Amino acid sequence: MTFDQMGSSASTVSSLDDLKRRLNLISDLAAAQGMMSWDQETQMPPDAARVRGLQMASLAGLTHQLFTAAETQHLLEAAEAQAGPSEFDADLLRVTRRDYDKATKLPTAFVEELAQAKNDAHHAWIKARAENDFAHFAPYLTRVLDLTRRYAELVGHDAHPYDALLDDYEPGMKTAQVRQIFADLRERTLPLLRKIVAAGDAADYGVLTRPFPAAAQREFSLKVAREAFGLQPSFSRLDVSAHPFQTNFSTDDLRITTRFDEQYFPMSLFGTWHETGHAMYEHGVGRELERTPLSRGASLGVHESQSRMFENLLGRSRAFWQRYFGGLAGAAPEVAAGQDAESIYRAVNRVQPSLIRVEADEVTYNFHIMLRFELELALLDGELSVAGLPAAWNAKMQEYLGLTPPDDAEGVLQDVHWSAGLIGYFPTYSLGNLLSVQLLDAARRVPEIAAGIERADYAPLREWLRVNVHQYGRRRTPGQIVQDATGQPLSADAYVKYLHEKYGDIYGFEA
Amino acid sequence: MTFDQMGSSASTVSSLDDLKRRLNLISDLAAAQGMMSWDQETQMPPDAARVRGLQMASLAGLTHQLFTAAETQHLLEAAEAQAGPSEFDADLLRVTRRDYDKATKLPTAFVEELAQAKNDAHHAWIKARAENDFAHFAPYLTRVLDLTRRYAELVGHDAHPYDALLDDYEPGMKTAQVRQIFADLRERTLPLLRKIVAAGDAADYGVLTRPFPAAAQREFSLKVAREAFGLQPSFSRLDVSAHPFQTNFSTDDLRITTRFDEQYFPMSLFGTWHETGHAMYEHGVGRELERTPLSRGASLGVHESQSRMFENLLGRSRAFWQRYFGGLAGAAPEVAAGQDAESIYRAVNRVQPSLIRVEADEVTYNFHIMLRFELELALLDGELSVAGLPAAWNAKMQEYLGLTPPDDAEGVLQDVHWSAGLIGYFPTYSLGNLLSVQLLDAARRVPEIAAGIERADYAPLREWLRVNVHQYGRRRTPGQIVQDATGQPLSADAYVKYLHEKYGDIYGFEA
Repeated sequence: MTFDQMGSSASTVSSLDDLKRRLNLISDLAAAQGMMSWDQETQMPPDAARVRGLQMASLAGLTHQLFTAAETQHLLEAAEAQAGPSEFDADLLRVTRRDYDKATKLPTAFVEELAQAKNDAHHAWIKARAENDFAHFAPYLTRVLDLTRRYAELVGHDAHPYDALLDDYEPGMKTAQVRQIFADLRERTLPLLRKIVAAGDAADYGVLTRPFPAAAQREFSLKVAREAFGLQPSFSRLDVSAHPFQTNFSTDDLRITTRFDEQYFPMSLFGTWHETGHAMYEHGVGRELERTPLSRGASLGVHESQSRMFENLLGRSRAFWQRYFGGLAGAAPEVAAGQDAESIYRAVNRVQPSLIRVEADEVTYNFHIMLRFELELALLDGELSVAGLPAAWNAKMQEYLGLTPPDDAEGVLQDVHWSAGLIGYFPTYSLGNLLSVQLLDAARRVPEIAAGIERADYAPLREWLRVNVHQYGRRRTPGQIVQDATGQPLSADAYVKYLHEKYGDIYGFEA
Repeated sequence: MTFDQMGSSASTVSSLDDLKRRLNLISDLAAAQGMMSWDQETQMPPDAARVRGLQMASLAGLTHQLFTAAETQHLLEAAEAQAGPSEFDADLLRVTRRDYDKATKLPTAFVEELAQAKNDAHHAWIKARAENDFAHFAPYLTRVLDLTRRYAELVGHDAHPYDALLDDYEPGMKTAQVRQIFADLRERTLPLLRKIVAAGDAADYGVLTRPFPAAAQREFSLKVAREAFGLQPSFSRLDVSAHPFQTNFSTDDLRITTRFDEQYFPMSLFGTWHETGHAMYEHGVGRELERTPLSRGASLGVHESQSRMFENLLGRSRAFWQRYFGGLAGAAPEVAAGQDAESIYRAVNRVQPSLIRVEADEVTYNFHIMLRFELELALLDGELSVAGLPAAWNAKMQEYLGLTPPDDAEGVLQDVHWSAGLIGYFPTYSLGNLLSVQLLDAARRVPEIAAGIERADYAPLREWLRVNVHQYGRRRTPGQIVQDATGQPLSADAYVKYLHEKYGDIYGFEA
């Protein structure tokens, strides 16, 4: 209890305490669902799937019911009426109010209709992708889009319905701001990409497909995750799943997953370090936020800035490989044979336009995102019909990356997001990329941190991230975090400069 | 919906449906807690322990609150008032009513007081055992006993307060019945034990401590669990934990654990088959009981009959080793060197009085249980003081097994149960032993089953168990299951005969 609170009346203190207990319980229920989901992806015997689905839906319904109940509203109002809350309590009330208002704006019937439509669309997408049949998916996507428009109206928005969607993943970010940042990014990196493509190979990329046993990949990637990135086994574990992810059940209970390709080691190595970035963000959240709605990352974009920093800015840096080439050679002598730190550094930074987003490099990745963002806006605005989507996709793919997908399975059907109703989600990937460099540049202004990065000693950097980003959880908005940590709003500047310098050097032309 | 129900009014059907939905949700919450507990013992990084404890307590409180809420009572009453329920619904209502009445007989303040006392006693026991200091544990045990007496009064009982305790683990079983069965068992097996001890060694027991790598133990024990006992990986998994256990989150989501001692392979082999027996019971429960309070084993005693049957009656049988000696030799050539099926059979059936219950053989095990049962009754009746407990323990240990513990850590402090408030639990271990043979004898009356057992093909037996025991879950009481499956109430007869025949043969004297 803070000094401020001690003067307040017993009844209002009790309201706040009761509210906190309710939020703790809701957080615990969310942790249980998170564990059921993690278990499903990593541990569960296959026959358990049907009942597990019922169990998870049942707990999700209970959680929603508890949070949107009249009692929550009463407790929240009483707590808000209390004079002079502590800073922490004021943050907790503000975020809880935001979540509560959003959750209660949607009628139950609409929530159920949307959930059903997403579920139907997801199954249709699986079939459509397997059979390369966009027409099968089209009516389901149309329905998801219709409901998404209604969602935006129900939740409310100012300038553009897309703002309402974006706000779910990147609170406070506006569509107009993303448009402007992306336009700037496109203008300043498309010429760079063209130059790189023209330059040809900068390394022997055959090293990337040399055999590397899964057990050795696991050992090496975890050793680095521990030593370089601070992921200790006392508060984390690594499992295998079909699609890598990070989840956590408390700030000291982090679970990351990976998958191994013995013929392409970068997948598990950089994938593990990516998820380590997400995990270390959650681990850095202040312990006093535990079991409250504040106790997780501020947004998907800020989250992605942490995963991308470990995966790319550090894990794909020259200093990193100067330090860890020896470890790689110890783990996989056949991979390292005839190689050195420089050749590995160049190989893992291959720039190559490709059709698949998740396989894209630092230069081309954002073009995959811009493409999706522009198509989402055109669909929502009604400028583009669902029927016209595959052609529009292919045209943009040609415009940005000079490629045309051989079929829709490798084109418009490649990502799960739209089928799952995740519209407004894609931009956060690129916002995270941009923010990763902007944050790293800000941290580097501290000489000790810059010196550490030069020798791949990231302990000082990690502490800076904990203090300037992680500890706040959701107490500060992404915008506040970026402004306070870097001294300016998010822009493409740092990322553009980073790409030009790094790839100008690798591909042998002036930045 | 059954034909009976179709005639009933819409409002009562709705009450029953609402009740079922509530029971489903409560079952799902219990599954989530089970998973949190399983994860804690098998997967969780250690730093997560503190918050995990809070999460589990919070979900347990919510579950209790939901079940004991007035709404449950209203739904239950309305459903009970409905005419002509189906057999299934009648069973569901009866068991739910029993659970509800029991749960609501305890004031919340008492539940919290008891939970706190158990928690305190558990920590005191850990310290007392580590420091061999019974005096430190004594006041905590006294408090647990006082609260246990109050518990029995609150719940209510007929002849003896112990009936109320026993009923939690073995519904319907009475203290007087246990006394009578145990007296019979003692009288008819103590002379046998004396004779065996006098007979000396019946095999070369050195084979049990030959090195057997953990990975090979795991592979062999799982192969047998699959082939002999039906535990398929599609609905189960095996993990490692400090203390072996079985838990499950649905009938197709079974989790068993084991621990490996590379210098004493029987621990993991027989331990895994023991837990497999528990798991296969849960797997055999009818799918229509899923997510209801009926969907688990009828009692601890019936559960133990299944685990002991696999572990001892089958796993420690001559026919079993005739079939699986080859597998053992393949998994551990060094263990099998110079051995054969008969020598392994004799070695794993060594009878040796020892101080520790969990290491006891088929002949001595029940004496450990009788000792605890008699001391529990004496403590509850006030005939024995807590201060006098260690001396009483040692006297009984001398009387039954001819041994005196060197200290209390290997004597009265060895088991966790009393510190956890589990008084009335111990008898179920022996009841399970007795029932295991009584059930197997009944099953053997089917020629196909008897023939299968002779060649260690247990598929026909497993199907008999599923039909006669497993499928009912809690729809039938343990007493009904025993009577219907074996044609008579539980007694010591079958077990006594089994011991005399088996060990008379092994130790070379007439049964």
